[in-house]
This record gives sequence, structure tokens and C-alpha cells, in this order.
Amino acid sequence: MENKLYYGIDVGGTSVKIGLFDGLALLKKWSVPTDTADGGSRILRDIAASLPGPAAGAALAVPGAVLPDGTVNRCVNLGWGVCRPADEFSALTGIPCRVLNDANAAALGEQRLGGGRGYQDVLFVALGTGVGAGVVLDGRVRVGARGTAGELGHLCMDPADPAAVCTCGHTGCLETYCSATGITRLAAQAGRPGMSCKDVMDAAAAGDGVLEAVVDRACDILGRGIAAACALLDPQAVVLGGGVALAGEYLRLKVQHAFEKYAFHACLGTEILLATLGSDAGLTGAALFAADAP
Amino acid sequence: MENKLYYGIDVGGTSVKIGLFDGLALLKKWSVPTDTADGGSRILRDIAASLPGPAAGAALAVPGAVLPDGTVNRCVNLGWGVCRPADEFSALTGIPCRVLNDANAAALGEQRLGGGRGYQDVLFVALGTGVGAGVVLDGRVRVGARGTAGELGHLCMDPADPAAVCTCGHTGCLETYCSATGITRLAAQAGRPGMSCKDVMDAAAAGDGVLEAVVDRACDILGRGIAAACALLDPQAVVLGGGVALAGEYLRLKVQHAFEKYAFHACLGTEILLATLGSDAGLTGAALFAADAP
Repeated sequence: MENKLYYGIDVGGTSVKIGLFDGLALLKKWSVPTDTADGGSRILRDIAASLPGPAAGAALAVPGAVLPDGTVNRCVNLGWGVCRPADEFSALTGIPCRVLNDANAAALGEQRLGGGRGYQDVLFVALGTGVGAGVVLDGRVRVGARGTAGELGHLCMDPADPAAVCTCGHTGCLETYCSATGITRLAAQAGRPGMSCKDVMDAAAAGDGVLEAVVDRACDILGRGIAAACALLDPQAVVLGGGVALAGEYLRLKVQHAFEKYAFHACLGTEILLATLGSDAGLTGAALFAADAP
Repeated sequence: MENKLYYGIDVGGTSVKIGLFDGLALLKKWSVPTDTADGGSRILRDIAASLPGPAAGAALAVPGAVLPDGTVNRCVNLGWGVCRPADEFSALTGIPCRVLNDANAAALGEQRLGGGRGYQDVLFVALGTGVGAGVVLDGRVRVGARGTAGELGHLCMDPADPAAVCTCGHTGCLETYCSATGITRLAAQAGRPGMSCKDVMDAAAAGDGVLEAVVDRACDILGRGIAAACALLDPQAVVLGGGVALAGEYLRLKVQHAFEKYAFHACLGTEILLATLGSDAGLTGAALFAADAP
């Protein structure tokens, strides 16, 4: 991707973050509001209108499943049904465009230029409102037959816990414990309702025993889920990102401890690392994906 | 691999199964006893002495972790420690040789020529004394950073079950429920000690309610584990093999039912299939791996 311009476009439910890259260097970054009216039909036009000029390629990172052929299978947060946004974007702009899932884009960004730098096989876990995840194997995003590879958030960790109701329709999903929503839920269950996840993490780190037990439980489940993922995928490293991971080493050490408790012995050397690109991970990965186009 | 001869060599704890392939056709098949005396030092020589002639390549399928560089990290059943058996075999025979894990070999065999034929991304699960598994992605065996990719048997399915003691040192591993050993253990727990796994399966299929509940529990856990693997790897198909899978459709339907109960919605179309190569899967996959040599 040297000496060529690429757009990395991270399409979120409230705003679209756009980066213009020259090779691996981010030249410029801006955002446009996400207009979800009329089934999100103006989103791509708004993005196109904000671009400063032509480029060798672009990629859209979207919050939904993307099939290997580039068909997007619904983005509830954008108002999109089944569609082919990369084709539409190319038709609007004349710029060759690809599309990938946003967690997969962040995974690629973190693997290539962030916390997972130097590793070819990385599991990226985004601990946000939900738990997104992406898998990079041999330096390439693993999309999966149905665009769901890396769905760590929907591993069933406890089928017998009726309180762990997931948005996906199941109970006991990892995301119902380890996301920001999950941690605040566990805090409420422990008698501390109405706290934000950050408040829970801060109070736990400051020595609140009740909330530390909440964080320990979330990390125990996350470590067990990561151990399962490592047994199956055997990556070189796991990168923790998303808002919850802003708790930094405090979280990382607890997750590593739980991982080591559950990991298959041969997986014990797997590195558990923190993400470094923050909210730029998605647009960075999208630009890398654009440049990786065959 | 057309018009070239390859040896596929499946090195087991009691015998070594060897197949001579011409392209995809198995020309001849034989076995030699596995001599585990003296740290298994005679195994490769015994294999070499049994070969009818030269070949374009060979591969050893071994019961242990194989690192991406071909180093074998212990095969307890063979008496081998850390070693490089492919190099030793090449030195003995003059035949270029590779090495892979035996479950990975069976996975490749079933994906390319067995139950998973026609699919490029396959999870193979061998339900035997233990639970082995292998992952084929884009038609290639996924070895993993530490040679453990596909270790479905060591997913922790219930960390709170003290009776589910695994040989790996943990409790609650999938293998402690879903292997032949696991199913006989569950039968004993249900008041039917001393039965073989086949007896349990046959009696359950014949209408013994107590034993059917045992099989249902094993299949529920297996379906949940496969759902986890599909969320992470998103293969096109899952192939069930090994001795326990000789129960055929009776087992497959129960596993599929449990899978559908736990699967992330986007994974629901994943095919659950039965293996077709039986005990030839390993040597077949080994020959294919030999022919795939770069």
C-alpha cells in the first residue's frame, strides 16, 4: 500500500469515522453523522460527499455480519437490511471499495499496527456495549463461511443462568457478563444498581470488595472464553480493546490470571495484550483491508 | 498429487497404519506394530523397513502436538519426547517427509475425501477414547501457533463439575463428557457402571430411558461445544468421526438438535455430518498433506 491513498471508513450507529491513509500513515481523519433515517439510505452519500478526493481504494467497516462475497446481512444500528454497500459506494465515488465487519476491521488494525503488532495470528476482543471480536490468521482477517468468525461474545458460558439474557435470544452468552452492559448488570445483581461500567471498574480498582468480586467474575468468564478460543484457534496473541479495556493493566492481569486457570497447557504461552489504537482501530483496519485487496 | 506416489502414515499407540496412494487412489494399505520400547526409538525404522519402495513424499500423523516448524512436542503414547520425526524419517528413507497431528490428518482426509467433501472449511471432531479435533480452513489444515488449533476436547464446559476430571489436569473439559470414556463415566454416574460406550449407545437407542438421558447430556454438551467452535471459526460443515460416531444418525441428530439450541443465529445453517473414512481418515489425510507440500 506504499505511496497510494486509501480511505478507511468505520460506519457506526451515531457517526462515521473516516481516515485517509498514505501507505501506513494516517494523513487526516474526520467524521460525519450517521443518518439512519429512511433505512440508512443517505449514509453512503454523506460519506462520499465528505471525501477530499480520489483514492486507490476504500473499505467500509460495518456493524453487522459480512458474507465472504461482500453481502452485508443486516446492520440494525444503521437501518440496513441485506445490501451490498461496497458496490454502492464504488458506484457513487468511482473508488474501488471492500466491506468487512467492524470488529474484524479493528482486529486487523490492532494486529498490523496496534497491540498485536509483530504477530500474524491474533484474536482481538472488543469489550464495549457488547463484546465484538475478530480473528486474524496468517495476517488475514478470517471472515468465516457466514461472516461470523470470532463471535466470542456469543459463546454460551453458563446455559443455566436465567439472568444472563442476551440480545441474540440465548442465555449465558459471554457478552452478558463481560461487556460494559454485562458488568453493570452483575454490579446491580450484587446490590449496586445504577453504576456505569467505568464507575464499577474504578471503584473495584480502588478497593471496593463487592465490586472487585464483580469484576473478578466477569474476568473469570472472559478468561475461560479466551481459553476456549485459544484451544480452537491457537493464535499467538490475544488483544483486549474497547471501552472496558481502558481499565488497562488492572483488567489485563485479571483476564490473564483467569486465562491461565482454564487454558489447555500447550496454550499457556499465548500473550494477552492491550489494544493501542483506541477508536482508530476500525478505520485503520479498514484502510489496511482496502490496501490488501487482491 | 496426480501420478505420484505418496505414503500416508498414521502412527498410533498400538499399531502404525500405512497407505500407499497414487494421486487420490489408495493402492495398498498395511500396518506394523508400534514398538514403544526404548522411548519409541524403533518406530520409524520399523515403518521404513515395511515400505515397498520409493515415493514422491510421505507424512506422519502422530498423536501429539506438532508445532508449525515440524517439531513434535511429546507423544506420550509412543514414548516420544520433543523430536523431529519427519527429518529422521527422511534421513532413513530418502523420502521427503512432513508431520502433522493425527486429528488434523483425519480432519484433512474427511474434508477432502470423506464426510466433508465439497467444503473448504471444516471442523472435524473425533469422538474416541478422548475427543480429538482438527480444523481445515480454506482447504488447509490450521495447525496453530503452538500446534493446538482445534482442541475442542479441552473446552471447559462446566468449571463447577468436580466429577469431570480430565487427563489434562482441568475439570469440566468437553472430553470428560463426550468421549467414549466420558459417556461410560456418565452412565456409571447414572447407576449403570461397567458398560462399554457402545453398549450405552445401543441400549439408549433401543429405548432405555436412563441411558438415553446420559446420551442426551453428552450430546447437549457436544452441541454446545460445537456451537462455540462455529461462533469462533464459522466453518461450512462439522464432521463427526471416531468410534462413538459409529452410532450414526442416532448420534448425529441429537448433536444437531443441541447445536441448534445453542448456535449463534447466523451459524444455524452449518451442516453437521458423519465421517465416512473410518480408520482410514488419518492415513488418507497424511497422504494428502504429503502431496500438499509446498
